[in-house]
Amino acid sequence: MRTRPLKVALLGCGTVGSEVARIMTTQRDDLAQRIGAPVELAGVAVRRPGRPRPGIAPELLTTDAEELAARPDIDVVIEVIGGIEPSRTLILKAFEAGASVVTANKALLAADGATLHAAAAKAGADLYYEAAVAGAIPLIRPMRESLAGDKVNRVLGIMNGTTNFILDRMDSTGAGFQEALDEATALGYAEADPTADIEGFDAAAKAAILAGIAFHTRVTADEVYREGITEVSAADIAGAKKMGCVVKLLAICERSADGESVTARVHPAMIPRSHPLGGVREAYNAVFVEADAAGRLMFYGPGAGGAPTASAVLGDLVAVCRNLVNGGRGPGESAYTELPVSPMGSVTTRYYVSLDVEDRAGVLAQVATVFAEHGVSVDTVNQRGHDGEASLVVVTHRATDAALSATVEALRRLTSVRGVASLMRVE
Amino acid sequence: MRTRPLKVALLGCGTVGSEVARIMTTQRDDLAQRIGAPVELAGVAVRRPGRPRPGIAPELLTTDAEELAARPDIDVVIEVIGGIEPSRTLILKAFEAGASVVTANKALLAADGATLHAAAAKAGADLYYEAAVAGAIPLIRPMRESLAGDKVNRVLGIMNGTTNFILDRMDSTGAGFQEALDEATALGYAEADPTADIEGFDAAAKAAILAGIAFHTRVTADEVYREGITEVSAADIAGAKKMGCVVKLLAICERSADGESVTARVHPAMIPRSHPLGGVREAYNAVFVEADAAGRLMFYGPGAGGAPTASAVLGDLVAVCRNLVNGGRGPGESAYTELPVSPMGSVTTRYYVSLDVEDRAGVLAQVATVFAEHGVSVDTVNQRGHDGEASLVVVTHRATDAALSATVEALRRLTSVRGVASLMRVE
Ligand SMILES: NC(=O)c1ccc[n+]([C@@H]2O[C@H](COP(=O)([O-])OP(=O)(O)OC[C@H]3O[C@@H](n4cnc5c(N)ncnc54)[C@H](OP(=O)(O)O)[C@@H]3O)[C@@H](O)[C@H]2O)c1
Ligand SMILES: NC(=O)c1ccc[n+]([C@@H]2O[C@H](COP(=O)([O-])OP(=O)(O)OC[C@H]3O[C@@H](n4cnc5c(N)ncnc54)[C@H](OP(=O)(O)O)[C@@H]3O)[C@@H](O)[C@H]2O)c1
Repeated sequence: MRTRPLKVALLGCGTVGSEVARIMTTQRDDLAQRIGAPVELAGVAVRRPGRPRPGIAPELLTTDAEELAARPDIDVVIEVIGGIEPSRTLILKAFEAGASVVTANKALLAADGATLHAAAAKAGADLYYEAAVAGAIPLIRPMRESLAGDKVNRVLGIMNGTTNFILDRMDSTGAGFQEALDEATALGYAEADPTADIEGFDAAAKAAILAGIAFHTRVTADEVYREGITEVSAADIAGAKKMGCVVKLLAICERSADGESVTARVHPAMIPRSHPLGGVREAYNAVFVEADAAGRLMFYGPGAGGAPTASAVLGDLVAVCRNLVNGGRGPGESAYTELPVSPMGSVTTRYYVSLDVEDRAGVLAQVATVFAEHGVSVDTVNQRGHDGEASLVVVTHRATDAALSATVEALRRLTSVRGVASLMRVE
Repeated sequence: MRTRPLKVALLGCGTVGSEVARIMTTQRDDLAQRIGAPVELAGVAVRRPGRPRPGIAPELLTTDAEELAARPDIDVVIEVIGGIEPSRTLILKAFEAGASVVTANKALLAADGATLHAAAAKAGADLYYEAAVAGAIPLIRPMRESLAGDKVNRVLGIMNGTTNFILDRMDSTGAGFQEALDEATALGYAEADPTADIEGFDAAAKAAILAGIAFHTRVTADEVYREGITEVSAADIAGAKKMGCVVKLLAICERSADGESVTARVHPAMIPRSHPLGGVREAYNAVFVEADAAGRLMFYGPGAGGAPTASAVLGDLVAVCRNLVNGGRGPGESAYTELPVSPMGSVTTRYYVSLDVEDRAGVLAQVATVFAEHGVSVDTVNQRGHDGEASLVVVTHRATDAALSATVEALRRLTSVRGVASLMRVE
């Protein structure tokens, strides 16, 4: 065992950072055994140094994150501030100073991962980010390393705990979106400003990161098609229920059939209740990975929270420290395929369309003609009439998203169609 | 990219080895990109060189595995022969010659992993074995690396596909054990000699490997308590059904409550049908890992088969080759806690006991007294009488396995007890 301790700078000491600091203390001896050298917290950067920070020696605290990140004696910088700036500048400073970096920052990685990877490569340092996707669930490492000899074709999952909690409540209690969001906020599952979660930005960042790793290409958050859950209504949930389905916010990354491009998207979708993802309750996450040789793998666990996310950060810390002690480097960016990201219109999906129509002969034929004219083939139709009004529920076969949305536009223009009551993709 | 290829020796070219060779060919360019150097199959050792081996150049074949393993130009040896010998000798020869080793050999690792790890450490070489547990499911790497900063308390899962297939058939068709085994054999899910699977040896080897990694101590297969599924009857399955349960062959590794010892065991158990493991059908595997900070994680996928297992071998091959190209080493054996393995008697579990008893007053009191005398508290009792005979189904609370088995012995000695119709642990 080497005796000189490895020095760690912690940037940020909030939900995740405070747990990282706690575990570094409580697990100190185990970490030393597993790394082959002691690790020591050498500084903690925060915004408000006056707040109580139980377990953190006050002399470690600083508000000058930049000075700490660039300190020449620091071996590893852990960035758990979040957001694009100042996090990016801090990480680049750390690499310039020769440190390795562990981060949980999905927003930054999805916006500008290439810059970070390039800086790590130039510095000959490590960049690890297991905590950026699905909290404690090991997913980045299995995909970057365990599946490195396989060909991944699809990644599909529930990657945001807040929205899953909300949709689960809507499903189990019949509540509307706003009511379920209020409950999530009260219970601490949603932040004061829930935009990143409910509008799908958080899941889209994760989808970008996973698509890049899965297909060995570069995907940024703005290339991910994104729809949040704010438009999901109690009627959508009830419609799903009638079909034996639940509504989930899915993130889906796929290699195209010809292998020449990839797609990444985040949107609510109906899935069968019997599907393993259908049973994912509350704020849990679950991700399927489909690969040529491995087949279908599923990873499940708590996707967020201070302690679970810190567990992932600590695993990365051990890996980075082991590399510093033994030599060697973790895998860098792998983007050699340079596959382009196709737009949403080219994705093939299925649609569930619930229409309010006039209850008279010929309407079904009109509606069916619109589907046919757009080359969309219909899987099932259910019609129910009452008092001159009828509702018509159509589930399509797979077609391009472009054809499906053109179909819905055309349906809206039919005079016999009073309105589109519910519209959702089906996976 | 380095241009001199890394040379790989493949020992064994059966179910797994032939898939490894196939993927090394079809994925040649991707593997080179991911490793940073080309990899080349330099030799393939088999027992019967005359068999057709599609896709393998005949000049690569040899029956002299020992010569191949020790060849000085070989960088990595992949051992997929299986069994203790000659595999152990071959792996040790490979390390002596300075090669790194990837193996899928759970039997050898569980019997004598310490010798292999010591040889790897002495040679300064890598030993990777993701494929040894749960086929394609990344489990060894997440536990050795992703959870390296956490404290694992429990690993529980279905780790043998053959027995899960058999139990699933018994559950869904009402078939007896032998009938379900015959079907598994006919469909290729069970080997000609199914002993290793149905007697629990295979799962016990995996439990030993996982317990060692989870608790950073050394556990061998003979320290794992083991019961197979040959005694599981249609009556057991029916009894489980009545309670809303299914019978699964579980492997369970636990840290004791005081943290001073560990246990590892493999036995059939009833679990609620609604438990995520209750829904694992056919030959799939699923493993729960519970850790202090991470919480409860689940990993699910195909636990065996040529291609899935080869996927895991290839992931290890990429890791080992990357280490050779960049310097560095994978994690070695971590057994610093030296926690002892406690015997089964000290494990606390729950029992399901179905008794055939005389249908007369006082019998229930007699039975209840036996439980009480052994300090075993009863959770539920169900009695049903018919024609002077009655059946009594008791489910206990948690007690030590020793107390529970002493209770059952005492029940068998009661004259009012005609027999024990079914006896199973409940998890
Ligand atoms: N929370 C989760 O469940 C979770 C899960 C996965 C990933 N993540 C990621 O982990 C990262 C951190 O999340 P979090 O939930 O821990 O955030 P948080 O609770 O808001 O904590 C942020 C921390 O950064 C500090 N900080 C902010 N601006 C700073 C600046 N300019 N200089 C120095 N310190 C600054 C804050 O200081 P003060 O304490 O003084 O305010 C606070 O300690 C984010 O990238 C997030 O996406 C979080
Ligand atoms: N099959 C699975 O699904 C699976 C899953 C996980 C792990 N594993 C593990 O993977 C390993 C291989 O399993 P497998 O199913 O591929 O076995 P297998 O089909 O029986 O293949 C064994 C191979 O080893 C060769 N061989 C046997 N003795 C040899 C010797 N003395 N010298 C040279 N070659 C010899 C055989 O040669 P011939 O071809 O000439 O007979 C055959 O090619 C085992 O450790 C097993 O536990 C298997």
